[in-house]
Amino acid sequence: MAGFGDATAVARVGEGRYEIDLDPDFGFAEAINGGYLMAVLARAAVDACPHAHPISTATHFLRVAQPGRAEIHVDVRKAGRTAATALVSLVQGDRPVVDALITLGTLDPDAAPAYLGAPPAPELPPVEECLDFAGGQSQNGFAQHIDLRFDKATMGWLDGAPSGRPELRGWFRLRDGYAPDPFALALAVDAMPPVALNAGARGWSPTVELTWHLRALPAPGWLALHGSGRMVADGWFDEEVEVWDSAGRLVAQSRQIARLGRGGA
Amino acid sequence: MAGFGDATAVARVGEGRYEIDLDPDFGFAEAINGGYLMAVLARAAVDACPHAHPISTATHFLRVAQPGRAEIHVDVRKAGRTAATALVSLVQGDRPVVDALITLGTLDPDAAPAYLGAPPAPELPPVEECLDFAGGQSQNGFAQHIDLRFDKATMGWLDGAPSGRPELRGWFRLRDGYAPDPFALALAVDAMPPVALNAGARGWSPTVELTWHLRALPAPGWLALHGSGRMVADGWFDEEVEVWDSAGRLVAQSRQIARLGRGGA
Repeated sequence: MAGFGDATAVARVGEGRYEIDLDPDFGFAEAINGGYLMAVLARAAVDACPHAHPISTATHFLRVAQPGRAEIHVDVRKAGRTAATALVSLVQGDRPVVDALITLGTLDPDAAPAYLGAPPAPELPPVEECLDFAGGQSQNGFAQHIDLRFDKATMGWLDGAPSGRPELRGWFRLRDGYAPDPFALALAVDAMPPVALNAGARGWSPTVELTWHLRALPAPGWLALHGSGRMVADGWFDEEVEVWDSAGRLVAQSRQIARLGRGGA
Repeated sequence: MAGFGDATAVARVGEGRYEIDLDPDFGFAEAINGGYLMAVLARAAVDACPHAHPISTATHFLRVAQPGRAEIHVDVRKAGRTAATALVSLVQGDRPVVDALITLGTLDPDAAPAYLGAPPAPELPPVEECLDFAGGQSQNGFAQHIDLRFDKATMGWLDGAPSGRPELRGWFRLRDGYAPDPFALALAVDAMPPVALNAGARGWSPTVELTWHLRALPAPGWLALHGSGRMVADGWFDEEVEVWDSAGRLVAQSRQIARLGRGGA
């Protein structure tokens, strides 16, 4: 089983052209995980651009990615001193599967916030008091890679007792010891089950669009994920995830809009 | 002076090719307004795609748009039964100025939310108690088009007394009587001054990326804009805007990430 670094490594095969074998272990039965795909696209963008950090990534998921060979096309739209922007597409069978616009820049690892709102409430319980959801799921490749520990107060949907509020909270780390970095954050913002499961949704909820912003370079250790949603309506729901690092810093913000699963709401 | 409808109309000149004269009145001295540009791109996307409503728009602003002639290139990446996705680029002088990925769908005008969180607090004061910021700015084309009435509690920055919290609230309508629709919402989500002005920022703050989601089709009347920010750090800040219509429905959600102006924070 490849670690996260190897599983997201892209091979440059030409100007703005990369290849990868998408790892089926980073997904569930239905599909390769969107966060894993965003990490892969970010690696190609960083390789092709003169900046190290994917500051702002907007991803539209067009089709279901299949495990195995995929091409990545990077079209650098602007390469400036402060920022560069690229259109990055994952292509399989000559069709775009995922399109992302990524603006890269260079963050200062020592920057302190000039303003920061309150951390999300309630706080996460300690890791050891959280639910190790994946304990019994050894057949699930995603759970073999990713260690998620959920705040039990947000897991009622598992027992048919959703809280009624679209929210999920949990701790996140990679089991292989891969330290948090921007690529791991791309994975983290889409690692939890859909928050709409706590608002009556059932089944698989395909993400249509996800935008995330890298706000600081994360410290080593567990990442805290705080997921919430504003509205479920007309077959669509939004999901916001904030990622806080072990040093208590807001390191990533995401919002996605997704379709309700066939079963739901 | 053209109305909003005429000022955003695009002329089809070929397969996936459109032209427009960008109206300098929809901007300030420094630049054409980003929301106006998003409305223009959305019109081209709707024309080129088999769905009526721009559900999810992710926009990267690469360069400063100039008034006058621009081309719009629409590349339909997927045209499905439920949704279509297009890459839409505004081009001037053969260079991309704004790139957007837009997923379109068809919303039900009568859909009621299955879940909706609380309206933002505090509520906006009535229109007549709000600040008509543009009253004395007759040279400002933007203010001749757009009627913004601000909650005075969020306008201390005007008098050198920023509140310390990145937030702005106000009422929005088009002066020409153009009724709220998805194109007007594209304008509304980027119509206010930067929320960071209340957190010590000064000067112009260029938007780098803005994603907005259309959540419902808006009713006629004033729109309520609630703007807030989470963090100002390392030269970047985020700004979230919720738009509520006169029927009390959440009709649009946006988040942008922007650079602090030269003067600030």
